[in-house]
Amino acid sequence: MKIKKFLLSESDIPKQWYNIAADLPSPMQPPMGPDGNPIKPEMLSPVFPDNLIEQEMSRERWIDIPPEVRELLAIWRPTPLIRASRLEAHLKTPARIYYKDESVSPAGSHKPNSAVPQAWYNKKFGIKKLTTETGAGQWGSALAFATSLLGLECKVFMVRISFDQKPFRKTLMQVWGAKCIASPSSETRTGREILKKMPDTPGSLGIAISEAIEEAVSDKTGKTRYTLGSVLNHVLLHQTIIGLEAKKQLTLAGEKKPDVVIGCAGGGSNFAGISFPFVCDKIHGGKIEIYPVESTTCPKMTRGPFAYDHGDTARMTPLLPMYTLGHTFIPPPIHAGGLRYHGMAPLVSQCIVEGLITPRSYDQLKCYDAALVWARTEGTVCAPETSHAIACVIDEANKAKKEGKEKVILFNYSGHGLLDLAGYEKYMAGHLKEIRLSDSELCESLEVIKDFPKVKKARTGKW
Amino acid sequence: MKIKKFLLSESDIPKQWYNIAADLPSPMQPPMGPDGNPIKPEMLSPVFPDNLIEQEMSRERWIDIPPEVRELLAIWRPTPLIRASRLEAHLKTPARIYYKDESVSPAGSHKPNSAVPQAWYNKKFGIKKLTTETGAGQWGSALAFATSLLGLECKVFMVRISFDQKPFRKTLMQVWGAKCIASPSSETRTGREILKKMPDTPGSLGIAISEAIEEAVSDKTGKTRYTLGSVLNHVLLHQTIIGLEAKKQLTLAGEKKPDVVIGCAGGGSNFAGISFPFVCDKIHGGKIEIYPVESTTCPKMTRGPFAYDHGDTARMTPLLPMYTLGHTFIPPPIHAGGLRYHGMAPLVSQCIVEGLITPRSYDQLKCYDAALVWARTEGTVCAPETSHAIACVIDEANKAKKEGKEKVILFNYSGHGLLDLAGYEKYMAGHLKEIRLSDSELCESLEVIKDFPKVKKARTGKW
Repeated sequence: MKIKKFLLSESDIPKQWYNIAADLPSPMQPPMGPDGNPIKPEMLSPVFPDNLIEQEMSRERWIDIPPEVRELLAIWRPTPLIRASRLEAHLKTPARIYYKDESVSPAGSHKPNSAVPQAWYNKKFGIKKLTTETGAGQWGSALAFATSLLGLECKVFMVRISFDQKPFRKTLMQVWGAKCIASPSSETRTGREILKKMPDTPGSLGIAISEAIEEAVSDKTGKTRYTLGSVLNHVLLHQTIIGLEAKKQLTLAGEKKPDVVIGCAGGGSNFAGISFPFVCDKIHGGKIEIYPVESTTCPKMTRGPFAYDHGDTARMTPLLPMYTLGHTFIPPPIHAGGLRYHGMAPLVSQCIVEGLITPRSYDQLKCYDAALVWARTEGTVCAPETSHAIACVIDEANKAKKEGKEKVILFNYSGHGLLDLAGYEKYMAGHLKEIRLSDSELCESLEVIKDFPKVKKARTGKW
Repeated sequence: MKIKKFLLSESDIPKQWYNIAADLPSPMQPPMGPDGNPIKPEMLSPVFPDNLIEQEMSRERWIDIPPEVRELLAIWRPTPLIRASRLEAHLKTPARIYYKDESVSPAGSHKPNSAVPQAWYNKKFGIKKLTTETGAGQWGSALAFATSLLGLECKVFMVRISFDQKPFRKTLMQVWGAKCIASPSSETRTGREILKKMPDTPGSLGIAISEAIEEAVSDKTGKTRYTLGSVLNHVLLHQTIIGLEAKKQLTLAGEKKPDVVIGCAGGGSNFAGISFPFVCDKIHGGKIEIYPVESTTCPKMTRGPFAYDHGDTARMTPLLPMYTLGHTFIPPPIHAGGLRYHGMAPLVSQCIVEGLITPRSYDQLKCYDAALVWARTEGTVCAPETSHAIACVIDEANKAKKEGKEKVILFNYSGHGLLDLAGYEKYMAGHLKEIRLSDSELCESLEVIKDFPKVKKARTGKW
């Protein structure tokens, strides 16, 4: 029998996270306060616990994973690396396609990789309650799962469009004991103000972030903190166990290195998780094509500028240097809720600026089409976000066929779609359409950032 | 780190299925025709392909698994054996609890273990289309998955109450290219007649089976056959890979044998899968307690007689010797749809008669309670059916604590509940109640079998 699955044992769970900030050719530009001055760690203290702020600011290449965190990660890790041999046969490609299966976590995605350490560090710091936002519901479920394991309270603001499209995500969070409400909500000042102006808004991650931060910082006991499921350095750091495990597993599979690495990218966390250990190789001379894949309906990497912008709509976060569509941008209500964020993680953005990775964008129809090909060959139902990676994988496998090249393609199977079947149903019934954003729409949404401090023009390298 | 997961490699997937019919102390009583004579293999030919009829009738102890079937099973097998150490700690029990995680299959349950070989044998026999029924939707999804892999047509009759409660199960089947309709339907004579009499019926597996058989046998080209997801000998046979793998894995875990083996039981397939290899040990002198767990709302094993009865409402199947509540019994609409079948597999029934296994029944409230304990300790969301096994496991672990005994408890985690969150939602909102069936209700439903041939009084052994 041809071996298909490459498994590691619990002792193979990485003992350290990889921090790409130590290796980037140009130094990262700092987060800024509204006054145009770099923010200091203590300014973040009301929002995050100090131990995570330290990770956020760290430039150490390797950061130890506490043994207790590894023990919790072992509930579902190491995740399998699987050869997509049935898809290969279907495409008649000479490419060898491998996927890292992050859908096997209890919450169904890569998100618990960061939810568990975040909950653990907060608990260690004496925090009793965590707040957060969630788009598609993947991050909210992951945090509900993690807080359930660690005995913390949890409150999740879920973007209304996803809350309505995916009612069972809320139930899932409740099963783990968390509270989940639709955002914008009447429970925060930010939410109430937005509801007054736009009572029928589908909501956005930017709005939900504002609400969750407001809820955290307004707890007078000081025992509540906010958590974010993507974008920030420490979140991307936690996800690098994906790529570190995948490296070991590719060796087990007899491969020297991948030629192509692909991940879908909303805020950047699953993409960074699979790719950063390979970006490191590329910085040190390796030849690898690396593609973050976004939705054409939220095209910050392929059509937005690299600029300073807030992470949230109510401008509660510092200004971050990132590819952005403007913090008030509200994307069309596609089912890939995790890809509806207006900005891209600063670390991923910096990799784009440096020329280390090359963003791509795909329309939802092509992605659902890829998802059905996947379900009928590899057998599993992927998340709508993940389908963007798969659409790109299929294009790359077809390219390899045209070129007659035996390429090794690695991608992150970031989550399953068992709670996203409403989207599949609409697609199969022909109710979804291609969505094109005009240049003028995008320009208009960028008005809000025009007076912000400018990023330094960064050197773009040749790799 | 304490090891929690016991994994096997693809080469450990069993090469043979275990047929308990070869080892039962008393011979099985034959299926009977309506005339009271044992049915002959050729009478089943319009319904099943000859190669599966041969398996159904076989008394060989070991039956080879074709290499092509093993290759397809390897898409998700071997499944992990996992130590439920967080549940143990929560219960403060000296028992060591292990579960075989069958939820990892693409369809989310143990059902593909039989769907894949059934589809393969049918294809080998030249069949182009399969029909079936499904209760909770687990079997229908599994067959849709299997036919998708093998390029066969598939039509699923889904019990109406589940069709309405679990709309996304239908979508899942469609993703794999199958057709799924609510039963009773207007597409068969049986369905139309029942709808005329009871337009608001929640349906039952018995009705759906009648419809699926009718659809298969009325195809004049002879290229359609019917498949069943439980009850029959060959289905239980296919599931024995669960217990065979678990045996190897218990050895890896350093355990000589389980003291207690538990599985929920609707038609009997997942229970048989985990337990039959251990029932074999018990027949040969091993000391093991073995519990099939049913719902109190469909209590054929704990409150029904062992008798000849039809497998379906319209009496299209032969008479089978089994624990039954009568083929017209329609259980209350609980969310554990897979436990709503009126009869128990003849092989499992025979094990009860022989005293090899001891049936238990649990009410849905206690089971959902167990499911929440499970989600908040072990981290995953189980199917409502599986929660019945978990409720029994918790009772047994508490008993071990009371007795101060280091028992080894093994159970089958037959499926995840990610498509069953509506039931959890109702439970958490306090909308579910305990359901008690009266003796007179049960007696009444047994009226329909009173003129059938009687089973021989079997010897009950002491084990």
